[in-house]
Formats: sequence, C-alpha cells, structure tokens
Amino acid sequence: MKKITILGSTGSIGLSTLDFIKKNPGRFQVVALAAGQNVKLLEKQIQIFKPKIVSVGTKEAAIKLRQDLALNNKFKILYDKEGLNEIASFQAADIVVSAISGSAGLMPTLAAIDAGKDVALANKETMVMAGEIVKRRAKQKKVKIIPVDSEHSAIFQCLQGEKIENLKRIILTASGGPFLNFNVNELKQVKLSQALKHPRWKMGKKITIDSATLMNKGLEVIEAKWLFNVDIGNIDVLIHPQSIVHSMIELVDGSVLAQMGIPDMRIPISYALAYPERITNDLSSLNLLATERLEFRQPDIKKFPCLRLAYEAGICGGTTPAVLNAANEIAVAAFLEQKIKFVDLPRIIDKVLNTHFGGKDPSLESILNADSWARIKTTEIIERITS
Amino acid sequence: MKKITILGSTGSIGLSTLDFIKKNPGRFQVVALAAGQNVKLLEKQIQIFKPKIVSVGTKEAAIKLRQDLALNNKFKILYDKEGLNEIASFQAADIVVSAISGSAGLMPTLAAIDAGKDVALANKETMVMAGEIVKRRAKQKKVKIIPVDSEHSAIFQCLQGEKIENLKRIILTASGGPFLNFNVNELKQVKLSQALKHPRWKMGKKITIDSATLMNKGLEVIEAKWLFNVDIGNIDVLIHPQSIVHSMIELVDGSVLAQMGIPDMRIPISYALAYPERITNDLSSLNLLATERLEFRQPDIKKFPCLRLAYEAGICGGTTPAVLNAANEIAVAAFLEQKIKFVDLPRIIDKVLNTHFGGKDPSLESILNADSWARIKTTEIIERITS
Repeated sequence: MKKITILGSTGSIGLSTLDFIKKNPGRFQVVALAAGQNVKLLEKQIQIFKPKIVSVGTKEAAIKLRQDLALNNKFKILYDKEGLNEIASFQAADIVVSAISGSAGLMPTLAAIDAGKDVALANKETMVMAGEIVKRRAKQKKVKIIPVDSEHSAIFQCLQGEKIENLKRIILTASGGPFLNFNVNELKQVKLSQALKHPRWKMGKKITIDSATLMNKGLEVIEAKWLFNVDIGNIDVLIHPQSIVHSMIELVDGSVLAQMGIPDMRIPISYALAYPERITNDLSSLNLLATERLEFRQPDIKKFPCLRLAYEAGICGGTTPAVLNAANEIAVAAFLEQKIKFVDLPRIIDKVLNTHFGGKDPSLESILNADSWARIKTTEIIERITS
Repeated sequence: MKKITILGSTGSIGLSTLDFIKKNPGRFQVVALAAGQNVKLLEKQIQIFKPKIVSVGTKEAAIKLRQDLALNNKFKILYDKEGLNEIASFQAADIVVSAISGSAGLMPTLAAIDAGKDVALANKETMVMAGEIVKRRAKQKKVKIIPVDSEHSAIFQCLQGEKIENLKRIILTASGGPFLNFNVNELKQVKLSQALKHPRWKMGKKITIDSATLMNKGLEVIEAKWLFNVDIGNIDVLIHPQSIVHSMIELVDGSVLAQMGIPDMRIPISYALAYPERITNDLSSLNLLATERLEFRQPDIKKFPCLRLAYEAGICGGTTPAVLNAANEIAVAAFLEQKIKFVDLPRIIDKVLNTHFGGKDPSLESILNADSWARIKTTEIIERITS
C-alpha cells in the first residue's frame, strides 16, 4: 500500500487525486492532507480518507476544523506555512503530491524532497523558480520527481525505455486556449468570463487564465528544461487545438514518440502515483474516429507575447524565471479582480522583467528575494495603470 | 561492431539497410548477403561491403557471379534454397535481416532463429504463416525478433519501458493506399499502373499491391498478434492517409502511445539494427507544421474485403493464415501479369479460403502443405476465370 500526502487537497488536482485513490482501495492510503481556506471540503475529505495529520491556511481555520469535527486532541491539525512544510515532510508518506497552485508550492515541495519523499509534481512553479536547486536536492536525496502536468507526464511516459542522451527535441503541445482564433483587436475586448472558459480542460482559475495567455505553456517550457535536462532551444511549442496529443519527443534517429489520451487529469495522476506500474481504470478509451482531425500550428507570439517572455526568461535563467512567475501571479490576480485588461497582462510582466537583472545559479534566498521584489514591483505598476 | 547478414539484399529493404550501414562505418559489418536474380546489383554490393559469403537464386547465377567478379575459390557462393538457409545460419552474424519478399522468407528466418541469431524481421509472412512456431523457437533459442515493418517497429518502440501485460489494444495505421477514395465502380476499372502508385511509401511491387487492397494491413494484424501476444480482437486498424503516425498502443490506464516520423524505412531499419541503442542520422526531422492535419478513419471493409478476409483468417488460426497468404501471393502475381482485375483479388482469395479447413497449432509441415495446396488451388481458380 503506497502512502500518500497531498498538498492542495481541495484544489482541482487534489480532488482528482482523491477521486483516483477512492477508486483504488487497498492500493493507496492517504496519510496527510494540506488545504488552504476550504475547511468545509477538507472536513469531508478527513472523514472519508482518515489522514493522520492535516494542515489548513490559518490558525482560525484550524480551530474551526477541530470544533466542527469534534476530533480528539491526538489528531494533529497544523496551519500556515510551517504547518504546510511539516505536512510535506511527514515521515509516514511514500510520495507527496505537490498540487498547491503558484509559488506557494515551492517551499513545501523542497521540504518533501529534503525529507526523502518521492514527489508527484503538479506545481510547475517549483521547477520554474528553482529548477536547478530542486534537481540538485532530488539527486542528493535520490528521490524521484514524477510530473503530473499532462504535457510533462506525456514526455516522461515517452522517455520510459529511452536513454535521455538520445532525446533530441521536446514538442510541447498547447490547446491555444479560448482566444486562439481572436485577432489583436478582439483580444483587446476580452472579458474575464471568456478567459475563464477553457475549450478542453477543466482547471483552476489561475491556470485557466495562464492557458488563455499562453503563459502556462511558457512556464511549462521552463519546467521541461529542468525536468528533462534539455536546452530551451530544443523545446518547441505547437498549438494543437484538439488537445489529444499531450506532448511529444523527438529522438536522435528521427523517431517521434507521442502520448495521447482523453483530456482527463486522472490519467497523469494515476500514472504518477502508480509509477512504474499502470492501473486499469473505467475512463473511456480515446476514440480517434470521433475527432475529425489532429492539427498542429505555430503559436502566434505577437498575439500571445507571454509565451515569448517565458522563453526569454528561460534563456536568461538565474532569478529571471522566478520574476516572470511572480509578476504573472500578481498580474493574473489583478485580472481576476477585473482591475486590468487581458492585453495588459504581457505588458505588465514585460515591464517588470525589463527592470530585473538575474544572475546565474542563484541561491534559494536570492530566488525568494527576487520573487518578493517582483510582487512589489508588479503591484506598483498595476496601481499606476489603474489609478 | 555488429555483424550483419542480409537476406534479400537487392530488394527495397535490403537496399535501405545497406545504405544505412554505409552511413555508419565502424558500427556495422556485413558478413553475408543473399539475393535472388539481380546478380549485377549483388556484384556491386559485394565489392562495396565485402561479405564473407553470398547466395543467389540459381546455380547459373552463382556461376555467372564467380566469373564476373573473378573471385578466388575461397569466396563461397551458394545458391537456391539450401544456399539461402546456409546464409541465414552463417555463424559469424550477430543479427540477420530477414527481408526476402513473401513466403520464401519463412524457412531461412527459421534457420536464423535455430542458429541462435537475432532477427530484424521485415518478412511479415514468417509470422503470418507460422507465428506460433517462430515465437516458440525464438523463446527456446533466446533470440530477439525486432520488427522492421514501420507499423510493428512503432509498436515495438512504444512498448519499450512498458510491461506487456499493461497493453490493452494495438492500433495499426494504414495509409489507405491509392484507392482510398475510390467508389465500388471506380475500383472495378483500376489499372495495374494505378495500383503500383503508393501515395506515401516507396516499396516493392508485391507489397504495393497489398497496400492497395489493404491485404498488407490484414497480414500486419496477424503479424502483430504473434509479435506482441495480443488477441486479434484487440488489434484495430485505422486509416490514416498522412502516414505520419506509424502505429499506436493503448495501455490499461487509457494512455495512448504513438510513434511517428517521416515515411522513410531507414528509421525502423536503423532502430532494428541499433536496438537497444538509437543512432543519429541526417534524415530530415518530422515537420508537423508542413502537414495540414492528421486524420483517422474507419477502414471500409466493403470496398476492401481483403482486410476482412485477413481478420477472419487470423481468428481461425491454424493453417488458415498460411492459405490466405499463399492465395494472395498467387493472385497478386496474376494481377501483376494483368491476368486478373483488381476486384478479382479478394474474390479469388475468398474462394480458396472457403475450401480450406485449418486446424489448431499446426506443425511446420502442415503449414507448408497448406501453403502448397493453396497455391495450386488459387492457380486453378485463376485459370478458370481467365480461360
């Protein structure tokens, strides 16, 4: 029985993970859960999955949780960042599902690695911000990092049985988001409600906006660089509106391997938790006959400059990807609050990046400092625009 | 240095294999070559690749070859079936490329296996006729059978790093051949020259006709059954006119893995010879942007009954696939000689199959007898039609 900790159990990936675990009784056991503010949902999860330890966002939430559940004092309820890190390094777990959204996922993921736990990584910011450090520590602790993102899971699956030195090129696919066929003028008029409607995948709000700007794909390029040890120049992005081919690898002999499937996160989650096994499920088979065609197009970086910004940040390296990510998080939050327009997103991030100078091989401290700096800087720029 | 024997060195696969070997000096050494009637071409190959032993189709050809090359008596020139079998089991080889067209490939391939040689299998008839026996002997002798057919190579590549028990379904792709969009009436008017124009692959005449009737795909279904130990019911065929996805596997968790590439046989040949390595080449990368779309359709077994006949023969098992194959070989030869029409091909094969009763787990002798019987029977039917 594989023992599992989930960081972000009430989020989209957390829910799919628990759904998968529920459908495979006897194979997996939930030992720890960490959530943020959604105490009601966490309560239900505790009753069903009976973890040994949980964590919530705040002290108040922790107190409410204990009262609601009428739990005895032996059951440990933690809170805040410290609580999250303790959950991440909880000794009983075999594997930690890192599924907190955004940069908040970095420190607990590192805590899990430092505690020698394998990581099922859904939090791409961990790799974007501190890929070099994460890889180094994972190597030291001999822990496996198994990607959960459908694209990186696809690449990881294609690479099974292949030598990494035979990898020539990675081809990340992107649905193109809801505005794929919008022109520049139409993009200027985009409403929040439109941006929140992803054509293929049901996901959290932040990542749905990132999919609409193609920033999500840009972050994935940087993540892929670290996960698979590939130069940014050998990572291509292709728009594939049908979202059936989840990503591809090209090998030195010209062979291209692709992983495909229905767009359901339970498949990559299942793979990450069962790895190196595969588990039978009741999901419907991919029916290629139901799809009229599979298309592949070049992404339009004029219409979607976020992708270009991410490529540039990835090539710059150092603390620049952390700045890109932080600026994007703040800008997307402002867009979700309807403070700024859709087309403001790349402009704001570009401005922040233009005032940052990132060195090489940064320490964790300098990454976190750059992250904080970028948040303040981005907030300032947004205030200037909106005042 | 891997030592290589090629059976069928002057055929399409033989030529591509030698081209590949020539481009990788120091990695591979040709130790033996077997050809049929094309003595002129074999002479050139001997001069370039300097094998230790060769075989040709007839005694006359062997004599001519010795005269032409002014070779000393130490150089061994064999001929006929016995010569071919001796070449196949030639002791110096590490791997035998089985690239003779048709049922003539069966006995030398078995000879190679019995001699403990790994086999790069391009001759699908070996598996169609005697899959069970071939697999059993390969297991006994602990030799690897690495498929060269682009479809089976694709499946073999996708299965690397996967457990065979996690394989749920095989999806063989088919270009659909030159008559994909012909209607029943148009098929009745088909000329030989049209049937010899394959839209994607440059291949020998026999296999080009088989691609036009979809018999080739049917034979591949039976081959896949034995190569990958999958029930015929779990092998699907999809028409994929672009011939970019060479085939796919579906795993128990719903993941579909595909191998793609430009339609160039040097890729699967390279893979089979280098396996488990991959070798860099100068072939152009697959450019998915150059393709407008990838399409997948159900094959039309009313228009192309050969595919249905092959499925039925595969399910019947026993000696039936050998009969199917022999009837097809004779019928295609008659079509190439313009004795019969394109639409006669499935009708003739169907008639032969209808008068055959195949048992289970046949001996090699009964397979060869069934093959001979089917040839006579098919010839009779053709004579009746054409007289």
